[in-house]
Amino acid sequence: MNQESKTSMTMFYESSTVEEIRAAVASGEVGLEHYVSRAFDAARDSQSRLRAFCYLPDTPSFNRADRVAPLAGVPVAVKDVIDTADMPTEFNSAAYKGRRPEHDAWVVARLRAAGASILGKTVTTEFAWRNPGPTVNPWNSAYTPGGSSSGSAAAVAAGIVPLAFGTQTQGSVIRPAAYCGIVGFMPTYGAIARTGVLPLAWSLDHVGLFARRVADIAYTLKLVSGTDTSDPHVSHIALKADRPGGRRIGVLRRQVGGAVEPAQQAALEGLATRLARDGAEIVTVDLPAELFETPAYALQLMSVEAAITHGNLVDRTPELVSAPMRGLIEEGRALHATTYARIKAWQVPMALRFDAWLAQTMGLDALLVAPATGEPPRGLEFTGDASFCAPWTYLGVPAVTVPVGFGPAGLPLGAQLVGAAHGDAQLLALAEWVEARAGWKAAVAERAVEI
Amino acid sequence: MNQESKTSMTMFYESSTVEEIRAAVASGEVGLEHYVSRAFDAARDSQSRLRAFCYLPDTPSFNRADRVAPLAGVPVAVKDVIDTADMPTEFNSAAYKGRRPEHDAWVVARLRAAGASILGKTVTTEFAWRNPGPTVNPWNSAYTPGGSSSGSAAAVAAGIVPLAFGTQTQGSVIRPAAYCGIVGFMPTYGAIARTGVLPLAWSLDHVGLFARRVADIAYTLKLVSGTDTSDPHVSHIALKADRPGGRRIGVLRRQVGGAVEPAQQAALEGLATRLARDGAEIVTVDLPAELFETPAYALQLMSVEAAITHGNLVDRTPELVSAPMRGLIEEGRALHATTYARIKAWQVPMALRFDAWLAQTMGLDALLVAPATGEPPRGLEFTGDASFCAPWTYLGVPAVTVPVGFGPAGLPLGAQLVGAAHGDAQLLALAEWVEARAGWKAAVAERAVEI
Repeated sequence: MNQESKTSMTMFYESSTVEEIRAAVASGEVGLEHYVSRAFDAARDSQSRLRAFCYLPDTPSFNRADRVAPLAGVPVAVKDVIDTADMPTEFNSAAYKGRRPEHDAWVVARLRAAGASILGKTVTTEFAWRNPGPTVNPWNSAYTPGGSSSGSAAAVAAGIVPLAFGTQTQGSVIRPAAYCGIVGFMPTYGAIARTGVLPLAWSLDHVGLFARRVADIAYTLKLVSGTDTSDPHVSHIALKADRPGGRRIGVLRRQVGGAVEPAQQAALEGLATRLARDGAEIVTVDLPAELFETPAYALQLMSVEAAITHGNLVDRTPELVSAPMRGLIEEGRALHATTYARIKAWQVPMALRFDAWLAQTMGLDALLVAPATGEPPRGLEFTGDASFCAPWTYLGVPAVTVPVGFGPAGLPLGAQLVGAAHGDAQLLALAEWVEARAGWKAAVAERAVEI
Repeated sequence: MNQESKTSMTMFYESSTVEEIRAAVASGEVGLEHYVSRAFDAARDSQSRLRAFCYLPDTPSFNRADRVAPLAGVPVAVKDVIDTADMPTEFNSAAYKGRRPEHDAWVVARLRAAGASILGKTVTTEFAWRNPGPTVNPWNSAYTPGGSSSGSAAAVAAGIVPLAFGTQTQGSVIRPAAYCGIVGFMPTYGAIARTGVLPLAWSLDHVGLFARRVADIAYTLKLVSGTDTSDPHVSHIALKADRPGGRRIGVLRRQVGGAVEPAQQAALEGLATRLARDGAEIVTVDLPAELFETPAYALQLMSVEAAITHGNLVDRTPELVSAPMRGLIEEGRALHATTYARIKAWQVPMALRFDAWLAQTMGLDALLVAPATGEPPRGLEFTGDASFCAPWTYLGVPAVTVPVGFGPAGLPLGAQLVGAAHGDAQLLALAEWVEARAGWKAAVAERAVEI
């Protein structure tokens, strides 16, 4: 055991869950401002060490909603690639310093309409790609929180807010959630409209959620899902779920992202054993071979679309764009049209085949897979390997990670559940059942004792 | 007046409409085989001059349907890019000589299920692109029938069949229909699944219909429209039609395809005058400027996707592929990924903007536009300019052409109506009203007198 890492815990605040806040605010037990103020104080206090926020207002921005509004009194942190009309949105880009959007992003408007208070903007990697921000992992400041939604994951993990929003184009929600020991959720492609969210790659970009409990995500998803004609991507035709609410779970003989660390593998196996003991049917399966190509496809798709989204900026002001971002754009520009067209055209048919394979051929309700290689990498430079998430991002199927324990360095490990497109509610219901058996609370208690 | 062309009329048979056949068969007035046999004899008889069919069976292939089935006793001709399990499907390609598909295309299966008898396969240009087939224009064999659905348009125009199917990737339904003096219809993108139809460019390919009357198309469309998970393209989000069944029609100050011939312009203006006289509201409009770029976009999209669809064949057996087709593939392979990705990504947003512009900003039920520059080109080599159709194909909005008269060479002229996506039924209802005022029967009678 690495004693240094075991003993360093950046900070933890006393966060309540969305459900607890709702109940307290709706009943009048506390005022609308209570939890928002508390979160604001925690956010400010945390900044010198955690650096999860790139922007906090001088005073809390209270949403004076009806106290029975569904998110009344709930403080929410929003990744700095999601527009907010009352706060800057700068994408962690030197080229966008001081940018203030005129409008709220669609999802922010939905949050405010539901009564939520936007607490502040959380650190993203530059343009939600590789160049890291200053946020550290709350469990150990020597480690990355993951990216690109670094600040949102860290703010939830540290107990500052019960709920935060991010985006995933490769693995930018699931990976930081796993690294930080919280729940992260990427919905079906298109389930949350992206109007007002900085595009990195429109074929892959998903708005995602962070919370400490699956139930908070399931509750919030209903409030913020929906389409918008300004974001006219279309999700593939949904297959009817054959087994709603079942607990037949596939575990992979071979992970799609490559080799996982022994502790990660053991955590998955331990969880599967506990789930089987409690009545889940665990089946070892081999993924369709074509899925092993999807991490490469997702990178190629992204490079081309990023070259379109950000190429002009790089041409105009290369000195304001990081080397990783410039490199991504160069890769995209070097590709042939036929390479992109093929990968783009495969996306929907592969998703349909995956859905059919999962639900019909295998009769599974979900896959249980690694969310990452294991614990987060040490240092802040590299935000981690996204290839365990990229297949599901490319397919546009929902994925959720729940924390399951700690690795040898004392950093969190997660377990990712992947479902069929449009089966978001079923997947979250299953994830809630899995979460109750994941042993996270016990692991945290044990870790605290060790500290 | 060109006397040579005025006096040459390749042939006309006594075709009944789908509605007449249905009525006669359903009532028992004639047997199921009556019209199919008659069409079969006409098809055989026509071949030496018209060359509309690339395949006819030795004896008619009767569909022994219930006589009250919706297309019982109706002979239908099918373009040779649409698979038929009982007939070859060779794409007019030397590389596919003798190809016999195992399965009917989805749309053919729908036709058979509705009781239709597939009469034979009609001539297409090679792979539905430029290299022409042998079919001539029924009105004058010195002129092209247009392409790529050359045989289907000619077979309907000559009165052999009341109904035929083709495909449109640029202008391959509307253009030959206009050149041959019949009704051609391209439905909303995705309205008819393309499973079993040779792809040229999946982002643009539409299955379309030919008939002599709009009513026959409206009737048949209901029988053959639908989606299939094997063809998982998705059409854009439909806007609610604001003015169902209205007759507010936009005419263009400037056609999107370029300059039209004076006779074509006069035909459109004459029609608009008659429509206004009978109560339509005719409004002169300027198309959104971005639409003038769409013909170029459609060509670039197509070249890339064709390079994927047919590139391997060209590499393996270049000697079996025509120069125009090889050229198309070379063009596609030369394009950068970013060029394709941009044009592909614009497709759905532009379609949504067009729909909003048409229905909401302008309050129009349809646009009345030229289907082509005017009369068909002389000779069989060049099947005509598709750029008057390509914008609507790129947008995926429904378009229908009705015949309106003859040009100076004695060849037909059409008028194209374009509607909002998913408003296919409304557009066809309007087209039926326009057709009744298009003066085509009088023009045909006058032309016959001149002959």
